[in-house]
Amino acid sequence: MTCDFYQLATPGVQGLHPYQPGKPVEELERELGISNSIKLASNENPHGPSEMAIAAVQASLLESCRYPDASGFKLKQELSTRYGFHPDTITLGNGSNDVLDIIGHAFLLPGDEVIYSQHAFIVYQLVAQSTSATAVVTPAKTWGHDLDAMAAAVTDKTRIIFLANPNNPTGTWFAGDALRAFMAKIPEHVIVVLDEAYAEYVAEPDYLSGLELQSEYANLIITRTFSKAYGLAGLRIGYGVADAAITDLLNRVRQPFNVNIPALEAAVAVLSDTEYLQHCVELNHAGMAQLEKGCEQLGVSWIPSVGNFITVDCGRDAGPVYAALLKEGVIVRPVANYGMPNHLRVTVGLPEENHRFLAAFKQVLQNSEKDE
Amino acid sequence: MTCDFYQLATPGVQGLHPYQPGKPVEELERELGISNSIKLASNENPHGPSEMAIAAVQASLLESCRYPDASGFKLKQELSTRYGFHPDTITLGNGSNDVLDIIGHAFLLPGDEVIYSQHAFIVYQLVAQSTSATAVVTPAKTWGHDLDAMAAAVTDKTRIIFLANPNNPTGTWFAGDALRAFMAKIPEHVIVVLDEAYAEYVAEPDYLSGLELQSEYANLIITRTFSKAYGLAGLRIGYGVADAAITDLLNRVRQPFNVNIPALEAAVAVLSDTEYLQHCVELNHAGMAQLEKGCEQLGVSWIPSVGNFITVDCGRDAGPVYAALLKEGVIVRPVANYGMPNHLRVTVGLPEENHRFLAAFKQVLQNSEKDE
Repeated sequence: MTCDFYQLATPGVQGLHPYQPGKPVEELERELGISNSIKLASNENPHGPSEMAIAAVQASLLESCRYPDASGFKLKQELSTRYGFHPDTITLGNGSNDVLDIIGHAFLLPGDEVIYSQHAFIVYQLVAQSTSATAVVTPAKTWGHDLDAMAAAVTDKTRIIFLANPNNPTGTWFAGDALRAFMAKIPEHVIVVLDEAYAEYVAEPDYLSGLELQSEYANLIITRTFSKAYGLAGLRIGYGVADAAITDLLNRVRQPFNVNIPALEAAVAVLSDTEYLQHCVELNHAGMAQLEKGCEQLGVSWIPSVGNFITVDCGRDAGPVYAALLKEGVIVRPVANYGMPNHLRVTVGLPEENHRFLAAFKQVLQNSEKDE
Repeated sequence: MTCDFYQLATPGVQGLHPYQPGKPVEELERELGISNSIKLASNENPHGPSEMAIAAVQASLLESCRYPDASGFKLKQELSTRYGFHPDTITLGNGSNDVLDIIGHAFLLPGDEVIYSQHAFIVYQLVAQSTSATAVVTPAKTWGHDLDAMAAAVTDKTRIIFLANPNNPTGTWFAGDALRAFMAKIPEHVIVVLDEAYAEYVAEPDYLSGLELQSEYANLIITRTFSKAYGLAGLRIGYGVADAAITDLLNRVRQPFNVNIPALEAAVAVLSDTEYLQHCVELNHAGMAQLEKGCEQLGVSWIPSVGNFITVDCGRDAGPVYAALLKEGVIVRPVANYGMPNHLRVTVGLPEENHRFLAAFKQVLQNSEKDE
């Protein structure tokens, strides 16, 4: 008789479903026996990585047999010089996912409560579950966070509130005034984690990064990533900015070598490549306009998005639409696991990729109407 | 008044001291204003990385804007083909440190007990503390694991036993017979984690890898790394091999993109570079003989080691010896935090590095005798 190892896992882990990543192109092509497919499923930067970042990685490769600098000295200096926050307030992560995980492991025990919004990025749920904490999910308001409801959900047991601005997969955002009003309501012993993975894409004048408020609110942690506008998803690097005491705690939980040498070198280099960032953001705005115009012509509605993706309403179960797009070699992301069974999330791609998606989408919707 | 954030952290995290990595060469040189120093402090492979691994990384760099394959398909296939274990038994980690951490988070809650040996690799202690579990530390036997004492320490609360074979920082090991006898005594609901980070260096005929026993003992997890003999410490990649049910649980806790593209590509490539591995192991054996002979000539005793390092007994507080070596530009590792205040751990380097260490060590010991 074999032991039931599931019974040995913590209660949260027993109930955990692993994160479902976007289907890799190679895997799809292997399955369907096709080629030349395009992937608009993981909110990746379609431009390709910064040449300066790649050159920096290449220059470091002979050091691959040495451990990375566990303190991330150079990158923290660079972030500090550019943005003004002290190196002692930075926690480096293997993507901002890692920082979110570290925050959970530092502060959460079974019975503690974690608040996040319906339709919010799924990693907040995974963090709550993997620590066996209790998730308190507040209803969304026109697909975005209902900040009043979130503040009202705070109890004596609340340890962490996760906010995403903008949010993935909805692309929704909230203004600086709303963030200030929210923070004023939250007791200081409740930690507010503000995930700004898509902040670089936001052009709204009323948008305010939490980085501007961190010194006012010691319980505010902001997370940022190099995976999106900075084009380094494959190298895994992000960071958190927080009060020095919180940062000290996070760095106790952080694995000392959680970020590898190529990631550290590339991040330092891409911070200097301001032309790259600007170009990628402009490319995204043009691509977003292209997708919005195309959807309008198709009579398809979408959730207004300030990110690098647009979430469209198929007006029916999106599953068969997703499957039909796959057969056309176009990979997008179903979001049924976000409680959005009729929607598909489409990453803004290169102009020709956006065009190809729109053409395939048109055909799939027409075929589907014929079937009805 | 500001909130005391330390009080908000979990009990284990409050007591946690972060891992102290080996001093980076640049940091030392910055502090002491010296150059041409050598680092024998982190058990890194002194040969430099495999050329095949570097070429594989280079070929992948334009993909850096895309997420890594979260399933690690190619690497698991390669490991499966070479070693015969099924892909469903493999958990990929950002170094084996990550796998150890994942195991802790999957199975440990406050109050659970974790057994490891005195002088064992410090990450076992960090895993216990970061999950607020209770550490049960059994006394060492001639610097190595006392497997009988470890088996006898099992209680109803024991969840995990950590073994290191060989162990860092002592270099000690145990034979296959001892491992078999130990496993036969451990109830199946207690998970035995066998850390084999240095296994590739071991030439002892009685040594047995846990990989040979995994199919017999469903509660046995073996961890391996590419950081040592495979020369990829800077890229962060390792893995665990376990029963498929345990592996499923570990992959729920694992961050989906915990291993980046350069690491995945390099690992696949270096597995094919059998000449590289053989050469690195031979270089290590020759270097170990050189260091042992040198220590013998200096009248210094050491703990016999089957790893890529040797831990020498300074016969006095090793702190000042370490500091004096630093001034000579030779970085080794103090192990006072392992309860070994008189010892220093010295990584086997290139022949000229070993020579330089021995010359500096001789001078430092002579100067220190004059001072007495």
